[in-house]
Amino acid sequence: MRMYDIIMKKRNGGELSREELRFFVEGYTCGSIPDYQVSALMMAVYFRGMTHLETCELTMAMADSGDRLDLSGIGGIKVDKHSTGGVGDKTSLALAPMVAACGIPVAKMSGRGLGHTGGTIDKLESFPGFTTALSPERFRDNVNRIGIAIMGQTADLAPADKKLYALRDVTATVDNMSLIASSIMSKKLAAGADAIVLDVKTGSGAFMKREEDARALAEEMVGIGKGAGKTTVAVISDMDQPLGFAVGNALEVREAIETLKGQGPEDFVELCMTLGSQMLLAGKRAASEQEARTMLEQVISDGSALEKLAEFVEAQGGDRNCVYHPEFLPVASVRKEVPAPASGYVSRIVCDEVGICSLILGGGRETKESGIDLAVGLVLCKKTGDPVRAGEPLAVIHANDSAKAQEAEKRFLSACTISDKAPEKLPFIRAVIV
Amino acid sequence: MRMYDIIMKKRNGGELSREELRFFVEGYTCGSIPDYQVSALMMAVYFRGMTHLETCELTMAMADSGDRLDLSGIGGIKVDKHSTGGVGDKTSLALAPMVAACGIPVAKMSGRGLGHTGGTIDKLESFPGFTTALSPERFRDNVNRIGIAIMGQTADLAPADKKLYALRDVTATVDNMSLIASSIMSKKLAAGADAIVLDVKTGSGAFMKREEDARALAEEMVGIGKGAGKTTVAVISDMDQPLGFAVGNALEVREAIETLKGQGPEDFVELCMTLGSQMLLAGKRAASEQEARTMLEQVISDGSALEKLAEFVEAQGGDRNCVYHPEFLPVASVRKEVPAPASGYVSRIVCDEVGICSLILGGGRETKESGIDLAVGLVLCKKTGDPVRAGEPLAVIHANDSAKAQEAEKRFLSACTISDKAPEKLPFIRAVIV
Repeated sequence: MRMYDIIMKKRNGGELSREELRFFVEGYTCGSIPDYQVSALMMAVYFRGMTHLETCELTMAMADSGDRLDLSGIGGIKVDKHSTGGVGDKTSLALAPMVAACGIPVAKMSGRGLGHTGGTIDKLESFPGFTTALSPERFRDNVNRIGIAIMGQTADLAPADKKLYALRDVTATVDNMSLIASSIMSKKLAAGADAIVLDVKTGSGAFMKREEDARALAEEMVGIGKGAGKTTVAVISDMDQPLGFAVGNALEVREAIETLKGQGPEDFVELCMTLGSQMLLAGKRAASEQEARTMLEQVISDGSALEKLAEFVEAQGGDRNCVYHPEFLPVASVRKEVPAPASGYVSRIVCDEVGICSLILGGGRETKESGIDLAVGLVLCKKTGDPVRAGEPLAVIHANDSAKAQEAEKRFLSACTISDKAPEKLPFIRAVIV
Repeated sequence: MRMYDIIMKKRNGGELSREELRFFVEGYTCGSIPDYQVSALMMAVYFRGMTHLETCELTMAMADSGDRLDLSGIGGIKVDKHSTGGVGDKTSLALAPMVAACGIPVAKMSGRGLGHTGGTIDKLESFPGFTTALSPERFRDNVNRIGIAIMGQTADLAPADKKLYALRDVTATVDNMSLIASSIMSKKLAAGADAIVLDVKTGSGAFMKREEDARALAEEMVGIGKGAGKTTVAVISDMDQPLGFAVGNALEVREAIETLKGQGPEDFVELCMTLGSQMLLAGKRAASEQEARTMLEQVISDGSALEKLAEFVEAQGGDRNCVYHPEFLPVASVRKEVPAPASGYVSRIVCDEVGICSLILGGGRETKESGIDLAVGLVLCKKTGDPVRAGEPLAVIHANDSAKAQEAEKRFLSACTISDKAPEKLPFIRAVIV
């Protein structure tokens, strides 16, 4: 078999076989197939697409390219959750304690943030002392004992995907549905869970700006997961504006804590309820969505979800007191309100731009090596559709540098549009694809 | 400027600017842009194509990527000839002495053959002692003194093209009209001639199998040449069967000598006359095609073209006696007739396959490092359209190994089709594009 023939076949619109896809993925992983042939193939895939069968085979080949996490030492049905990413996405912080409190074991590998989207590990490090450097034994024991453990990506999961993604990133071949789906799903399959719940975002802050693209990606991923024998569900949710109000590491932790106390923002609560009930269904802890929602409401109202967060933080070296006293979390020195320049309705908040405001303030990483300021960020006061009077605050900027605060304010204002008419309101949850 | 943005622009169907193309070519030549980005761009070009303007700019950038040959020390209008290659293509061997005898200086760089198409230098080495290792001074002096010199590719002409072609060759991105045209023309422009006559082949032995593709390539190249300020003409000629009768190095030299004696095969003579008259017109040695043809006929009938070949061979260390006594050229030990398996008309000779027969016999290089047997090859006895009786020879195989001769015979027979009806006869010269 020759890589040349594989490129030619795809270029001419052919369907690659399982053997051809494995030959390419294995050869690329071990270095016998060079980058320049793979990038040519990726561009041919961009133009010709891949069939569902090809996408499944590519995913399996990448999932098999490195270690597969062995979660067999953990009891129960392990349900993993994955978000395609967005601004203010603190979902895991609230959702993991909620489902763990309902008896779903959460055994998760998480990443750090890069660019304007944050990472769960960064956010968790707002708890002083918190660490994700767990031995495999402690990881397993924590899950079995308290129901949650999160560690950094230590195992060599899907190295083919890592190498391929880095190449696609510099050759303008990222935005292809099959390649995106196989990249996400190969890591999820290697991460060893029994069931997978996907949170696919759509809108100006999402990778998939258009809802039909988000839907297509969701369907592709659900198909791949099912093909691999895993219960797989996808929720399509709005990311046309930031999720909840808070954007920034410690600020988002505070919002997650508020949510676990039953005082979360409407959209964020709805997302946690929707994803959580799908996880409970997939984990066979509930027989219906209604039953699942009732269970999730219960662990919030009785405080057990909040306590689960405290146990989890403590088990990973963090200060559990911060859960009950969020004022001990990192605080920024400057707070600056951003007044509305006019009266009317907030008709648009360009979501990416709000993420960039947080980046400007120091809350995100420009490169992998950058440090981040956990305290800074923004808290929205108004969301899309809200009426506002001129001079009323649109948001509060939390900064440790006045110049940066000013820059962020300017950028934030140009990301907001105020109109005379209220904008059309779309449902926050767009679809659940099972 | 970033290569990423250039790839993205082409991928999305944009037209690259002069600056973008120069950035890419210069960066790739010096190594600051990696292979994997260039192969992705080439695949995007394969799918999106390039405008004529882009193709011209790419060509000029590649022509400027290394040395440009300085032919200013040579008097007269230098006219270069280039063939897109085929089987039995000994054109330069006869044409160069013909036009030189008419006063057109021939200052040529030539290559060796690879695969089933031969190279002019290999063929010339059939003359014992012949060398192309000339110093620039001797090269120049030979042209000024006798009118012809041919040297191997010593100067670093269009290194960007060399690097790009090698990459395209392993990434399935060779067959794009703009890329083929720019590859050929960048070398021709760097080779320093004042005018360029292109021999674009079409048919089963040509790179461009279909006539419309050959025509499109010819038009593209003529446009590039004119855009660069050079008189440029393209002749589209048939390569659906081998050119002339002889295929193989010394065998082709013999046929070229016969042609210079006025006894050449009809198609080959026609090609030399057509290309030669275009060269005489481009070099301003003749005012009309009719006048040019008369001049070319004259140098054949008075023997001056043949004597020019002898002078040229001698000036480059070869044995001039072989020109007048071709029996001194290398001779194979085995001659084997290939009898026709049936009576009828030769309706098809798959041209590539005849080249491969010569390769099997040892007359071509499988890799750049292979040695070649100058004596071996085939001489056709019948061409397409000829009537044949069962048992009459279709060709004579010249071999130095009986087993190889048998293999070549088998392959040759399966490349020939004999039918009851004579095939439709297409004109040998399909078009002249000025």
